[in-house]
This record gives sequence, C-alpha cells and structure tokens, in this order.
Amino acid sequence: MIDTSFTRAFGLEHPIVSAPMARVAGGRLAAAVSAGGGLGLIGGGYCDADWIETEMAEAGNTPVGMGFITWKLDQAPGVLDRVLERRPRAVFLSFGDPVPYGERVRAAGARLFCQVQTLDDARCAVDAGADVIVAQGTEAGGHGARRATLTLVPEVADYLEGAAPGTHLLAAGGVVDGRGLAAALMLGAGGVLCGTRFWACREALVPEGQMRMALAADGDQTTRGKVIDAARGLTDWPERFDLRTLRNPFVDAWSGRAEALAADEKARAAWSEAAARGDPEMAPPIVGEGIGMICDAPAAAEILAAMSGAAERLLTGGWR
Amino acid sequence: MIDTSFTRAFGLEHPIVSAPMARVAGGRLAAAVSAGGGLGLIGGGYCDADWIETEMAEAGNTPVGMGFITWKLDQAPGVLDRVLERRPRAVFLSFGDPVPYGERVRAAGARLFCQVQTLDDARCAVDAGADVIVAQGTEAGGHGARRATLTLVPEVADYLEGAAPGTHLLAAGGVVDGRGLAAALMLGAGGVLCGTRFWACREALVPEGQMRMALAADGDQTTRGKVIDAARGLTDWPERFDLRTLRNPFVDAWSGRAEALAADEKARAAWSEAAARGDPEMAPPIVGEGIGMICDAPAAAEILAAMSGAAERLLTGGWR
Ligand SMILES: Cc1cc2nc3c(=O)[nH]c(=O)nc-3n(C[C@H](O)[C@H](O)[C@H](O)COP(=O)(O)O)c2cc1C
Ligand SMILES: Cc1cc2nc3c(=O)[nH]c(=O)nc-3n(C[C@H](O)[C@H](O)[C@H](O)COP(=O)(O)O)c2cc1C
Repeated sequence: MIDTSFTRAFGLEHPIVSAPMARVAGGRLAAAVSAGGGLGLIGGGYCDADWIETEMAEAGNTPVGMGFITWKLDQAPGVLDRVLERRPRAVFLSFGDPVPYGERVRAAGARLFCQVQTLDDARCAVDAGADVIVAQGTEAGGHGARRATLTLVPEVADYLEGAAPGTHLLAAGGVVDGRGLAAALMLGAGGVLCGTRFWACREALVPEGQMRMALAADGDQTTRGKVIDAARGLTDWPERFDLRTLRNPFVDAWSGRAEALAADEKARAAWSEAAARGDPEMAPPIVGEGIGMICDAPAAAEILAAMSGAAERLLTGGWR
Repeated sequence: MIDTSFTRAFGLEHPIVSAPMARVAGGRLAAAVSAGGGLGLIGGGYCDADWIETEMAEAGNTPVGMGFITWKLDQAPGVLDRVLERRPRAVFLSFGDPVPYGERVRAAGARLFCQVQTLDDARCAVDAGADVIVAQGTEAGGHGARRATLTLVPEVADYLEGAAPGTHLLAAGGVVDGRGLAAALMLGAGGVLCGTRFWACREALVPEGQMRMALAADGDQTTRGKVIDAARGLTDWPERFDLRTLRNPFVDAWSGRAEALAADEKARAAWSEAAARGDPEMAPPIVGEGIGMICDAPAAAEILAAMSGAAERLLTGGWR
C-alpha cells in the first residue's frame, strides 16, 4: 500500500482518483473506483441535471464526487445545489473561476477539488479555499491547456509550500500506469487523477468503435485543437482551453478551420448524426497521450490494483 | 550515488547529461559538466566550423561530446569529419534523420546519441544504431515538438524493450532538479539530459539581461513558436519543430505572424541589432517551462551534485 497525506486525509487505499470525464464517467465507473480503493468522480461537466441525477442514483450509496466544468456551472447555478443536497464526497471544478463556489461547497461538507492548468490558476484555487489542487498537464485527454505535468506539478508544489501548506496536490495528465504514479509522487504530488486510463475500462461509457480505435493507437496519434468543440457547437469554450483527442479523418480535414466548421450547419449535422452512432472516423476517442501505453479495458478495480502495485514496486527499489 | 545502466556504461558519477545548447553550451560548460561527474555536450548546432573548433579547444582534454542539428549537418557534411578527428566522447543528433550518420560516428569510436520527439523518431533512431536515445518532451527549452516527457519516456521504454533492448534511454524536457531526475528514473529512463538548468549556470554563454529576466520568470511565461526563428532568418526549420522561449514584447507582438516577420527586412534588422546587444525585450531567453523552478545560476558542478543528491534522497524514501 502506498500511503500519502492525501490517502490518509481521504481514507483511501490507493492514491488514485478517476477523472470526472463528461458523459464517460457515470455513476457505475465512479462507484467502481471508490469501491476499489480509490476515489471516483462522476463527469457532470456540462451540467445536464437529468443525466447527473441518473448517474448519482447509479452510484448508490458508494461515496463519490461530482465534477463540473466551471464556466458551464456559471450558466446553470441551480445544478450545484441539487448535487450538494445528495452529499457528494467531493466537488471538482475545472476550466473557470472557482472562487464563487468555494464556500457553498465546503459549507455542504464536500471537499473542494480545483483542477488547474497554470501557476496562475493555482493561485486562484487557493483563493477559492481548495482542499485539493489537481495540476493538469497538456498531455491529458479532454480539455486542457499548454503546460506539461512534469513541470507544473513541482512548481505548484513549491508555491503551495509557501502559500497554503495544508492543500493536497494531485498530478493529472499522462498518468496511466505505476510508472506515472511513482513519477508523480517524486514530483511532490500526494496522488494522481487519471482520465484516459479509466476511459479504457469496463465501466466507462464508451462506444465500441471508439474503444477499438483507441486501444490500437500509439501516443503520437493525439492532438489538441478546437475542431471537435466546433462540431459539437460548443463555441463558448474559453480560448485558452482546447480538446485533446485522437486524430481521425474528420479532425485532420478541419484542422485549423474550426471557425468555418462552426458556421457550416451541414457539416455539423453530418457529424452529429455519425457521433450519435459512435463512428470513430467522425467522433474521435477523447483520450490523452498516455493511450499509447494502454491496450486493454479491464475493470476499474483491476486498474487501481495494478497501477498501485507497480508503483509500490518501483518506489521500493524496483526502478533499478 | 545513483547508479544506472547508463552511468555504468559511461563511467559517470551522476546520471546527468548537459544539453548541446547551440552557442550557449561552449567548451567551458561541457568540460565543467564532465569534470563534475556528468557528461557535457558542446552545442555545435548550426555547424559553424570555427566556433566548434574554438570550443573544442576550450574543453581541452576533458572528454565531452558534440551536438548537431541534423538537418543543418545535412548541409555541412564536412563538419562531422573534422569533429570526429578530435575523438569526441559522443555525437548527439537531433531534428532530422540520423540514419546517414550512424555508421561514421560509431566507426570513429564515438557513442551516438539521438534525440527524439515522437515514437516514430525513436524507430528511426534505432535504425541509425543509436547507443542512447534521448526522449524530448514539449516542455523543453529550445527547439522541440508536441509530445510531453511524462508519456514519451515510458512509451519509448516499452518500444525499446522489444525492438532494441541494449539501447540506453534518457529523459529530456522539464528536468531541473532532483524531483525531475527521480521522476525520470521512475518512468524508465537511465538518466536525464538537461538544457534549461545548465542555461542558468555560471559557465553558460548567456547575456546578463537575459539571465536576469529568466531567473525572475515563472513557468507560465514560456511559449513555443516560430517567431524567433523568423527573426533570425532560420526559415529552413522543418514545420513540426518550433522554439520554446520566454515570452517577451517582441514574441507577443509577432505571435502568429512569423511569415510576415520573415519577409520584413527592417524588423529583422532591428531585431538582430538588439539581439547582438543581448536585449531580452527583443531576443528572449531560450528556456523551458522548468525555468519557473530556477532562481540562481551556480557553477555546473554544484548543479550536478545538488540534483543528484536530492534525487537520491527521494529515491530512498524521502518522497514520503
Ligand atoms: C474523455 C474525457 C473527458 C473529460 N472530461 C472532463 C470534464 O468534463 N471535466 C474536467 O474537468 N476534466 C475532464 N477531462 C480531463 C480530466 O479531468 C483529466 O485532467 C485528464 O483526463 C487527465 O489526463 P489523462 O487523460 O492523461 O489521465 C476529461 C478527460 C477525458 C479523457
Ligand atoms: C538555449 C537552448 C539551446 C538549445 N539548443 C539545442 C541544439 O542546438 N540542439 C539540440 O539538439 N537541442 C537543443 N536544445 C534542446 C536540448 O537538447 C534539450 O532537449 C532541452 O534543453 C531539454 O529540456 P530542458 O530545457 O527543459 O532541460 C536547446 C535547449 C536550450 C534551452
């Protein structure tokens, strides 16, 4: 067992949190992660109240947390109260200013996780009273920004040591196995948050064609960009965040022309129709660079045990 | 002492190589690194035969290596022979196809280091017969590409295990202290190659104003782009590589308009004149994201001892 100040504070067996992947991490995945000794988060990202309700019910009595995309929450403030009534273990905010939500979250007895992409964001998370700061590097799947995990984590650690020494720190972006977990601990994190690794997992809500494409990919095949948000009509995303996915023919065809795509109703309709069918040539798997090291989709509990076990071996001299 | 298969093969005290930073890593820095227990490389990047001659002489009898920018070497093939006559410890190639040079380098008794930015590049380095592959992540200072160190290193390690198990692997990009070194070892590297950390060092050839600006910067302040290459007239750089520097007023002003700058003789002349004076508002420090954790410029030997000592403490349980 790897124990850190984070696992002790949260009573976890493994220093591993599953990312609140919008529409991919439902109640079943989050509950499996928490039951497996980690902490599971539901991907409430776009604040669809019905979906959130259903997935919280699906998690049952297993303690899980809820993730929101902060700028979306700004547009749907009632959703947070409804979630807090159900007493989630944690509320996870990313991609926006968490300050307006900090007090409400902590007053409801939930722990506040803030995901940050820059040192500047980390300062903001401290202002919001974050219990846990998740430093997310550019190698991450899904939305993110430019800085890499390897430098962001230790730089935020140094900052927290001075500014808010009680705050926990997790590393996110590119961690898919025991090597990544052990590296994160060396960098000063108390644990990791993993998206891509749990995307490829039995309990994730992922179309079969996408899963097949992703398991065959190497890590050179992902890219960050605005094409898929344009296709989905999500043009409100702040400029500094873009989306990492696998490249596919659609992404390549529209690369660098997201604005034209956003204005092209016909192309977007064709995309939506194909996405609804889960066609990976149109709607690419949303995964990070770590996908190159993933070639199976086991149960979440197996992932936790394997990652943690491998890290422990490395940390006790196995790296030699 | 941290010993790895890499330190044993090269007879080093520390698993640390200094990057062949063009025009910044001269003979004095390379010799100081080798004398301090690491392996020092001279930054012969753009293949200026006179500069290279001078700096090899400066290194004297201390065993050092020489780095070339591969696509530049393609244009100046005689330079390699002149360097090989002086029996360098290593030849380091990056940014181009190393296959045409592998045999000559090894026949001359030098070890071949190939820096790679993708898994595809790693396949090419194996074809060239590389003794050491340096996996360079996007957080690196100087030229580089998109993939991050945290995923590229273990994915290349997995590849080498199958394809060329005797090949050594180093991590480059974002490693500036013992935390980064320890993390790299967890990821499967046998050591690290550091640029930015040795850029900020007593023996580096860096103008004072640039040094002051860089030591005050945080890691959010770097960016990758084509502006500075355009200003320097280096428009031959292959599209997929760009340059990480600190942002400064000049970089911000021309960001996204590198082609216009390349065509603007007047703007380029003004830039050259200011660069010759070392004006950091025009010619920015060429450093990576790790600069945010660097606030001094000690002697190279001190850097080696501190980095290695801190990593050793972490590796023997100090991370808890
Ligand atoms: C499919 C997918 C969906 C994601 N959706 C969200 C989201 O809705 N909100 C969020 O804060 N982060 C989201 N992320 C990012 C994760 O929170 C996390 O930073 C990332 O997955 C970590 O990098 P990794 O994918 O390399 O593990 C998503 C990631 C993936 C892979
Ligand atoms: C000032 C500077 C100049 C560089 N010049 C070269 C070069 O000429 N050839 C090369 O292969 N790499 C060059 N690099 C990249 C390094 O080889 C190395 O990949 C990088 O410095 C590692 O990342 P770090 O800066 O975060 O340590 C340079 C880096 C810096 C900072």
